[in-house]
This record gives sequence, C-alpha cells and structure tokens, in this order.
Amino acid sequence: MTIKIGVVGATGYTGIELLRLLNSHPNVCISAVTSRTEKGKAIADLFPVLRNRLSLKFTEPSLENLRHCDLVFFATPHGTAMNLAPDLIKHGIKVIDLSADFRIQDRAVWKKWYGMEHQAPELLKEAVYGLPELNREAIADARLVANPGCYPTAIQLGYFPLLAEGLIDSSRLIADAKSGVSGAGRSVSLGNLYSEVNENFKAYGVSGHRHHPEICQGLGHVAEQPIELTFTPHLTPMLRGIFATLYAPLKNTDVDLQAVFEAYYQDEPFVDVLPEGIQPEVRHVRGGNHCRISVQRCYSSDQVVVLSTIDNLVKGAAGQAIQNMNILFSLEETAGLTAVDWLI
Amino acid sequence: MTIKIGVVGATGYTGIELLRLLNSHPNVCISAVTSRTEKGKAIADLFPVLRNRLSLKFTEPSLENLRHCDLVFFATPHGTAMNLAPDLIKHGIKVIDLSADFRIQDRAVWKKWYGMEHQAPELLKEAVYGLPELNREAIADARLVANPGCYPTAIQLGYFPLLAEGLIDSSRLIADAKSGVSGAGRSVSLGNLYSEVNENFKAYGVSGHRHHPEICQGLGHVAEQPIELTFTPHLTPMLRGIFATLYAPLKNTDVDLQAVFEAYYQDEPFVDVLPEGIQPEVRHVRGGNHCRISVQRCYSSDQVVVLSTIDNLVKGAAGQAIQNMNILFSLEETAGLTAVDWLI
Amino acid sequence: MTIKIGVVGATGYTGIELLRLLNSHPNVCISAVTSRTEKGKAIADLFPVLRNRLSLKFTEPSLENLRHCDLVFFATPHGTAMNLAPDLIKHGIKVIDLSADFRIQDRAVWKKWYGMEHQAPELLKEAVYGLPELNREAIADARLVANPGCYPTAIQLGYFPLLAEGLIDSSRLIADAKSGVSGAGRSVSLGNLYSEVNENFKAYGVSGHRHHPEICQGLGHVAEQPIELTFTPHLTPMLRGIFATLYAPLKNTDVDLQAVFEAYYQDEPFVDVLPEGIQPEVRHVRGGNHCRISVQRCYSSDQVVVLSTIDNLVKGAAGQAIQNMNILFSLEETAGLTAVDWLI
Amino acid sequence: MTIKIGVVGATGYTGIELLRLLNSHPNVCISAVTSRTEKGKAIADLFPVLRNRLSLKFTEPSLENLRHCDLVFFATPHGTAMNLAPDLIKHGIKVIDLSADFRIQDRAVWKKWYGMEHQAPELLKEAVYGLPELNREAIADARLVANPGCYPTAIQLGYFPLLAEGLIDSSRLIADAKSGVSGAGRSVSLGNLYSEVNENFKAYGVSGHRHHPEICQGLGHVAEQPIELTFTPHLTPMLRGIFATLYAPLKNTDVDLQAVFEAYYQDEPFVDVLPEGIQPEVRHVRGGNHCRISVQRCYSSDQVVVLSTIDNLVKGAAGQAIQNMNILFSLEETAGLTAVDWLI
Repeated sequence: MTIKIGVVGATGYTGIELLRLLNSHPNVCISAVTSRTEKGKAIADLFPVLRNRLSLKFTEPSLENLRHCDLVFFATPHGTAMNLAPDLIKHGIKVIDLSADFRIQDRAVWKKWYGMEHQAPELLKEAVYGLPELNREAIADARLVANPGCYPTAIQLGYFPLLAEGLIDSSRLIADAKSGVSGAGRSVSLGNLYSEVNENFKAYGVSGHRHHPEICQGLGHVAEQPIELTFTPHLTPMLRGIFATLYAPLKNTDVDLQAVFEAYYQDEPFVDVLPEGIQPEVRHVRGGNHCRISVQRCYSSDQVVVLSTIDNLVKGAAGQAIQNMNILFSLEETAGLTAVDWLI
Repeated sequence: MTIKIGVVGATGYTGIELLRLLNSHPNVCISAVTSRTEKGKAIADLFPVLRNRLSLKFTEPSLENLRHCDLVFFATPHGTAMNLAPDLIKHGIKVIDLSADFRIQDRAVWKKWYGMEHQAPELLKEAVYGLPELNREAIADARLVANPGCYPTAIQLGYFPLLAEGLIDSSRLIADAKSGVSGAGRSVSLGNLYSEVNENFKAYGVSGHRHHPEICQGLGHVAEQPIELTFTPHLTPMLRGIFATLYAPLKNTDVDLQAVFEAYYQDEPFVDVLPEGIQPEVRHVRGGNHCRISVQRCYSSDQVVVLSTIDNLVKGAAGQAIQNMNILFSLEETAGLTAVDWLI
Repeated sequence: MTIKIGVVGATGYTGIELLRLLNSHPNVCISAVTSRTEKGKAIADLFPVLRNRLSLKFTEPSLENLRHCDLVFFATPHGTAMNLAPDLIKHGIKVIDLSADFRIQDRAVWKKWYGMEHQAPELLKEAVYGLPELNREAIADARLVANPGCYPTAIQLGYFPLLAEGLIDSSRLIADAKSGVSGAGRSVSLGNLYSEVNENFKAYGVSGHRHHPEICQGLGHVAEQPIELTFTPHLTPMLRGIFATLYAPLKNTDVDLQAVFEAYYQDEPFVDVLPEGIQPEVRHVRGGNHCRISVQRCYSSDQVVVLSTIDNLVKGAAGQAIQNMNILFSLEETAGLTAVDWLI
Repeated sequence: MTIKIGVVGATGYTGIELLRLLNSHPNVCISAVTSRTEKGKAIADLFPVLRNRLSLKFTEPSLENLRHCDLVFFATPHGTAMNLAPDLIKHGIKVIDLSADFRIQDRAVWKKWYGMEHQAPELLKEAVYGLPELNREAIADARLVANPGCYPTAIQLGYFPLLAEGLIDSSRLIADAKSGVSGAGRSVSLGNLYSEVNENFKAYGVSGHRHHPEICQGLGHVAEQPIELTFTPHLTPMLRGIFATLYAPLKNTDVDLQAVFEAYYQDEPFVDVLPEGIQPEVRHVRGGNHCRISVQRCYSSDQVVVLSTIDNLVKGAAGQAIQNMNILFSLEETAGLTAVDWLI
C-alpha cells in the first residue's frame, strides 16, 4: 500500500521534520509539498538534507495541487487549515492538521485564544483530537484529525493514569513545563535569536498560554469533571524536547503508583513507563516518537511528581501525525517510527 | 581599609569565581590561596585568566599558612571546613564557609544528609546563616558565617514576603528549580560531561536533595511554623544560573502581591522586584549579585507563581560571600559587587 | 540475508551509535554485545533509548562469546582489537575495527603515535583501510577492515580530487579542522566537562595528533608522492560534526574546480559535491552518512579552499563501518543508511 | 576627571556592552544614549541589567542631544557615523566610531565593500585607526578614532611580530577564523536564530568579507609591502569570542619565535603572549580586554601557526573603544578594564 501524501506549509521545523520522517516510511509517496512563499523552488535547494531524496518543487497550496492526494498534512500556522481543509475533505481527501485550528471544540474558547473567528465551525465537532492514547478508535474512522500540541501531549499523557483512577485532587494540578527552542518555530523574531536564548532560561506565557484550554479539555474528559490547572511553560537552551514536571496532591497515599502507570499504558507502543529508579531525560527521546514517563511520591509531602518527556517535533508534532496516519490507514501503528531515539 | 584574605580550596568554580570578584574589590588583599592537590603551583598557571593579576602559588591548607589572614573563605567540598575552621576562629580569624558544613543547625539532620558525623558541633549553634536579607544584624557580629546554598538562596528569597505576611498555605509549597551545570562543580564525573548534558534536560534528586532541609529551616523561621515543601531540582544545559518557579495556594486572593513584594524588599540592594509585566531571565543576573523576582497570580487558579532567578556562582555562592564579608567588616554592602550583570 | 553481528565495546558513543544504526538495518541481527565493565547488565538499562529494541545483556569480550557471529565490530579504544581480532579471523569471522589498531601500515609509525608495540603485525599488511571512496574493491574481499578516523575521512575526501588530478602543490597543504565534543569519546576527564567546553573554543594537538600520519598515508597514496600537511584540530561546543577547511596553492588557476569534483565523485552515494554557491553546514550531515563538500578558489589569492563536513559518529565512525559491512557482504551499499540527515 | 559620554545606537550587543563596561569606569559619566527606534524609552526598561544603574532614556541621535558631551561613541551599523560625526567634530567633540565608516582609508575600496558612497571623505584621511598596539601615539592626538573590527583585531595582533621582523612569506598568509554568534549583532534574521545556529558550524563570506581589506591594510602597513591573505571566517555556536588560527611559511626556521613575540609585546597591557606549552582558549578572554596569543612551528612543515583569541565584544569592540578613550584623554590605559576575564 502506498499513500499519496501532500504537505501544506513545509518550510517550518514541523514541516521539515515531517518530510524527514515520511522519507523513511515504507508506505508513503510524497507527491505535493506546498509553500506560498517558496513556490517554484526545489525543496532540496532550501533544505540540502533532502538532496537526492526528494526531487519535488514547492507549489501553491490549492485544491488543484492537492487533489490527487490520499492524505494532506497541514504544518501551517493557525488560521490556514480551517480555510483549505473543508474543500479537501469534501473531495474525499483525509486531513491531519498539525496546527491548532481543530484542537479546541468550543468555538468561543478557540476565538478567545487565537484571536479570530473560526471559519469551519461545522468541522470543529467532527474533528477528532489525535491523541492515540485517548482516541485511537475515533481516529481510525476520522476524516479530519486535529494533531495535539506539544505541551498538551506531554502533560496529558503524564496525568491520564492519575485522573482515570481518581487518585488525585484534580483541582490542584500544577504543570511546570520546559521546552526546547524549536517549539517556537522558524519564525524570525528577536526572542528566538541565538544570542537572546543561549545561556538563558525564562518562563513565558505566565499570563496565559494557548495550550492551557487544550490541556484542560483533554484532562477534564478523562477526569469526567472540570479540572483546575496551573501551567507554566519555560524556554530552555536546547533545540528539541519537552520536559514536564507534573504535581498533584494524592487523595490516598496508599496506592502503588508504579503499578497504576504500567497497567494503564501496557499496550501503548509509544508510552514508556520507566522502571522505578530510572528517570526520563530529554536525550532519551530525541528524534523518536516515545513519551517516557516516571512517577513517584514526593519524599516530604503528599504530592505525586510525574516526569514526562517527549521530542516536541516528533511525539509532539510530526511523529504523532504519522502515528495518526498509520491508524487512519490501518497500517501497523509503528510503521515508519521504529528508528531508535538518539542518545547523543 | 584592606582585609587580608585567605581562600581555602580555590580550584573549583566557586573558588575561581571568588578570586575573580575579590580581584576587583577595593578593600581586599588576597594573601593566601590553598589547594591540597595543586600546592606549589602558580595559580595563574592553572587559571590563565589570572595572569598578571594574582602572583600567588597554591599552598597547603593549614593554620600556619592562614594565620596572618583577617578572613578565610572556604570554597571546599563539605567536610573540610568543620575540621579547620575551629582553629582559625580560635586565633581570631573570621570565617565565611561556602560549603554546607554550618548551614543546618540540627546536627542529626546534617548527619543524615551529609553522611558523616559533624566535627564541630559546638560551632553549629554559633554559626550565622549568611543570608543578609534574613540575618543582616547577626552577620555583622559573627565569627563564622555559613554561606547559603544556591537553590536555598533563590527559593527562600522568593517565598519570604508571602510567608512573612501569612498570605499562603505553607503546607503546600512547590519549588520547581532549574540550574545551570556549574552548580555541579568541577568534579570529574560521567554525568557532567558535555556530551551527556548538552541538548538534554532532566530532573535529579527527586528522591531527596541536601538543600531541602536547608530551605525548610529558613522558610520555617520566617513562617514561624513548620512548612511543607515539594522541591524538584533540574539540570539545564547552560553554564550559570538558577531559575526557580515557586507555587503556593493563596489564602486570600484579594491582596496586592506586587505591593507586598516591593515593600518587603525596598531597602535591599541585591533583591530586585521587577515591575508588573516584566519577568526575570537568567541572562539578567549573569555575573551579578542580584536576585531578580517577579510575582503574579495564576490566571486560572488560586495559586501564586513567583519567578526567582540568581547566578548560582554569584548570589548563590561567591558574590553572597563577599556581601557577607562587607557586612562583617562594616564596608559598604555593595563594595566590589557593583559591576553590571551580563546581558550576553 | 541476515548477518549475525557482534559488537565489542559498545559503551562509548561510537558503540551506541553503531547499535542505533544497526537497529534499523534490514539485514542484520545483533547477537552479541560485549563490555568488560558492564558485563551481565542489560544494555537497555544503561541506554534507555534501546528499551524494547534490544534485549541483550553485555557479555565478556571473548572468542567464545563471539564465535557464532558472521561479523564483529570493534568500537574499543586502541590496543584492544589487535589482541582479539586475530583469533576471530582465524575462525572465519570478519572484523571491522573502528579503533586505530590497523589504520597505519607502518608498524614503527604506529608505535610512535600510539605508544605501544603492535601485537598483530602480520595482520597490519592484510588489513584494508576502509574508506570506500578509495578502496571499495579491496574492502569487498577483506577479512579485516580498518575503519578510518573521523578527521581523516573528512580531510581525505576533501583533498582527493585535487591530488588525483595533480592540481595543487602537495607540499603546502593546510587542514584546519573543527570537531564536536563527542569525538573525544565518553571518557571521563576534566577537559570534557560541560563547564570546560561550553562557550569555549580551542585548538588541541598542535604539537602532533594521531590522525596526522593516517591522513598523510592516504593522501600520499592518491598523490602518488609524499605530501606535506599542516593539520590543526579544534574543539567546538557542539555534540556532533566535523568541519574541515582545507587550503592548498593551485598550480594552475585556470581549471574548473567544480567540474573536477563533480566528476570525481559522480558515482559515490555518500559524497555530495554541493552546487556552486551552496556551502556545507554541519547540521546538513547530522545523523547521516554523507560527506558534503564545496570547493572554491579564494577571491584574493591562488589558494583553493575546500569545505568538507561529516558527522563524526556516522561517516566518521559507525555509518562508515556499516557502509563497509554492506560492501563486505555484497549488500546494497546504502542499506540501513538511507534515513535523511537532520536539519535540526 | 570625569568625561561626559554620549553613545549613539546603544541597542545592539556592542552598545549594551559599552554601557556595561562604562558603568564600571572611574572617570566617565554617561550623559546621553540615543536610539532612533527606542527614543523616549527608559534604557533599563529595555535592558533590565541596567536597572538602578542608569536612569537615562533613549533620545534621538542629533547634534543638539550630544552637544554637551566630551566624547561620543558610535555603536551603529555602517553608514550612520559618517553622516553625524563631522558635525560633532566641528563642535569640538571627540568621536570614537565602532562601526566600519572610517576604518578603510581608500574611499573606492570602502565603497566597493560597503555599497555606498562615503559621505565624509575629508575625514577618512584624518581618522586614526584605533589599534593601540599599532597607533598609540596617533590615537592620543586624534579627533576621530576608527575602532577596528573584531576579526581584524585578532588577526593583525597575531601576525604583527612575524611581519615586523620579516620572518614569513607575506604572500602566503592564511587566516582561518571562528567567531561566536554575537558578532552577527542583534539584527533579526533567519540565519541568527538559535535553531539555525546551535549544533551547527559553517563558513561564511568565503566569496569575500568586509574585514578582508581592513586586515590587509593593517598588515601591509607593518610589512611595509602589500601582503596576500586568504581569510575564511566561520560561525561557531557560542555567544562570544573569536579564535583565529593563522598560518604562514617561515622564511627561516632557525628563529626563536617565542622570544620574538614576547619582545614585541612586552609593554602591551592587553596582549598576553602565553608561555610555551600553554595555548589560548576563548574562555580565557571572555568579558576581558585581552588578546591571548601563542606561537609555534608546525611539527611537520615549515609553517608557523599562531593562535590568537579575543572577546569580540570587548577587545574586538567595546573594550578596545574604551582603551582608545583612555589614550585620548590621557588616562591610565587600563582604566575601567581591569576586571578579570571569565573562566566560566
């Protein structure tokens, strides 16, 4: 089986990562790559890593140029997919949107955080939130998959077992998350300069971050009640990776947390609950699609502390999108995602 | 006035930072620098940055070699100062210990965390914990100052106003702290290799960290009751800096936190409460003795979030030691510490 | 076809990289991994990136433990392979040695640079220097392949076309090379600490480097006369990569250098001569087996300037070893090496 | 003595570094800081490191706002100083220009490399090239000092002793130089993003770099004949620092190079010729105004290899500008520049 793939907006880090991973996938053929700003240019001229691997040129993003595809990925800023996806879907093309356009089901909430009116509200309801560990069956039947954000992936996977089993006070969640710089994208701004970021560490979005409602939506779903979350994202001087340190008060301190986590994720190919005594590090997930997690009780309080780490460009974006594609097309869920994570 | 200074154990990063800062101090003369392993070697041969600045050689650490000093700094691993300091003090020499030997007043707690019997228990009681913002007057009269650890400095300064005013539930403190690599010292171990640390991020000490009892001791002192703290230190790929993100539930959400912090620290030369809307970054304290702090309410919960940042080698070690020296010798408290922090 | 593989000394960065790449190779089965220091330990316990990928334990390096293998890789420090390889070869096992033991054919030169007597001088002559671009046919028939060093790979590939065509004065070669830190290996030494390496840049080996005779041997072979080379290696704060800037005076400035390079390497799968106007960057070869090269005349002198870049752990070590394995076992030369290099 | 200082264009890294260093200088008062884009804003609001240190606001760069100054520094992009400096000089204000406007005396060469007509050609002749080691006496009497570029400083200081003594073939100079990222300035461009620069290494300006004619002008002056130089600048992932590796064929290999260098620089406060066996590293000059140099013969050819390192923002820009100010105003040449370089 060969899936004909289109990629809309492949000039950002998420897009290039998608091309890198798709290139090794046994069942795909990349047949259209679009970029409004680079159209006409050979992709390999912009990204020499693709020399002799991908001979396409960037084309204009349009129904015409994507019509022959079985599946189109959007790796665009928010506000683009909601305009083009409806037409593609009407023509029977499946869509996986790596942007935020279809992640939040409440249209008013979406407007509040993304500052514009949603252009495809009818699809908001239909879109399936593409976190396989939450929605695997629904993804398999979807026409439109909303690929989760990077922070939401790491944080939800860390809290799910605790919420599903009702082990914590869900009104006192604190997620302290640290991201590598590629999460900010390839956009040219002062704050992303090497000289501003290196040898520096800072919090950002303390007054509110777009991933907050997305995280709460998913956690509330599993908790079966609204949750209350304090979320602080930070920027750390490294290229890739998210490291989330998650806190919550235990309702009952007499539970085997390790066993709970191992049972909850026992069939998941990409969630690795580490044995007691081993803790995740960002370098243990670089380039791979794993979320590696450890759980422990604080030695001096009733808090549980979960450490959850992913590669923001893989499990937090392009890898998870491919995992969703595999589910959508009934492929082995790990197809194209079996390379070993990088230690160094 | 010229103070004759001895430095015991100047081959680590804290020691060399102390020499760097002392070199610019208008009132000191460095007259003895000891190192058991490097004795006889010219200091500038080991550290070319001191060429033509300091012509001393390392000597053996001993009473004899330090007898002529007015003040001796210990920049040694724990377990050294407690053996040599008593003799120095007996001979009228003031001591500022940058190691952990005299930070914790409870001898049993010290033994538990540092794994050895304390050799100078009689001095434990006399030693003054050298956080000027807490103990300025006692420091002025001390013979022995226990210079605080780096995490404890950043975390205590961040929580003090909240605890002093009774604004938070002190049984639910969470301190998520991130440190640059120099905090691990100049000891040669696999975990400190560039190839293990760079492009990586991890938590450590989740099952217990030596700074925990030190932090609790100070916070409890200001809270006037025992506190409960969850403390998670992390290692981040940068040379210098500590960034602490502090959480606590507000008892009363109707308080002007900014005003509380500004009032509490209004006379402090090295605690900078940033204006609303400006948040601290590690690069804003590099090389300088400031602790820069911002405070805000979480937008989605009753938590207060304090961001507190210092340079671990300066306010978290050598700079604070010099601040303590200035107090001890009735100098201007900012003497030798007026250089601008580095932006880049 | 499935090749049974043994890896001797898999605890260094070269070894783990070999395991990472072999794990994705369609024709291999890793059947023994040895480590004297870690024997008995599960490999995935030491390197969590291999969890659920490789269930072997480290064993003692011995003929007995490796006897069933078709091919054994040595990823050991120098001085190990020369003792164990002869026995393996006697038993019909092919050997690819990633260490320096068989790279230099002159036994006296080897002794001078590696400080010990060679223990398998009879194999020195038989060993084939495993640079496929130089020795492809001989590699195919070898029993013992000496995998080249990282600097020698980047520098030789950059000079070969110029020397083969007699275009430069071979008595005035200058190779200014810069390496990432992983080149120094996983050995624990002060000079490899993050705090000593980061935000630093230095030359090393100015008074002589072991790769110098290896480079001269290969260049002399292609030049068909002794060459004279000034070689300065430098350490740069990044994990992976070698960037070599190569200088030589042109004998005749009237030659189309671009055409010479493109013709020389037109059939090579892993040497990418970049089009005029595009220059190689280390990130364009990260994780991949390419050597990317550009060539130009200096705009202000008669010098030719060649820029040659590789990933030191891949084309400079583990990837090239797999390329050699593919040749040895008549597989597609690119088998297991087709993943796209990393941009970020 | 207190010099009233104006700084034009203080929003770049060179400008902020100048403010950092001037703040510790015993003889200056910063009395005007201009920025067209930030005028009206408090400087400390843009750069929190200056909080409580500098209470000025940015003003418009104009004669009126600078009239009261004794000395004005230009830390602007090229093309600005040549328009405003003439007026200031007419009003008796001394000018030190950190941009390139007055570095190259040949107006046609300047135009070729900087792409515009020079607007103050009459001052080009009068301007003194501000390399104290070359022009100390002329600087003392100047009205207008052209502060050298960063590469030119490191490279000229490395070659001067060899050229002055006629020891090398000056038609075969090769300067392979590596720079930290701050050298690219605070301008917002794709190539300066953290995600494009980190874990990367590349050459740039291979087809020509503006510092080339500046270097040749200075070297030719000392050699007393035109020289021929191949110059390759590289970008390395660190914030600060230039490391230049300089090559030239020795005319006579029988000379004591160490003695030549030590004699040549014996009276220089900021050129440190390291003892034989010690080689410079970038971290040995961070934050300080030193150029540290070592010289050696290549062990395998007739080339001399000089290693020359500076902090590009200090000796390569702001520090050298202050050194020039000290000379201009007959202060101690090291005033305000005595802080110890940073090891870490």
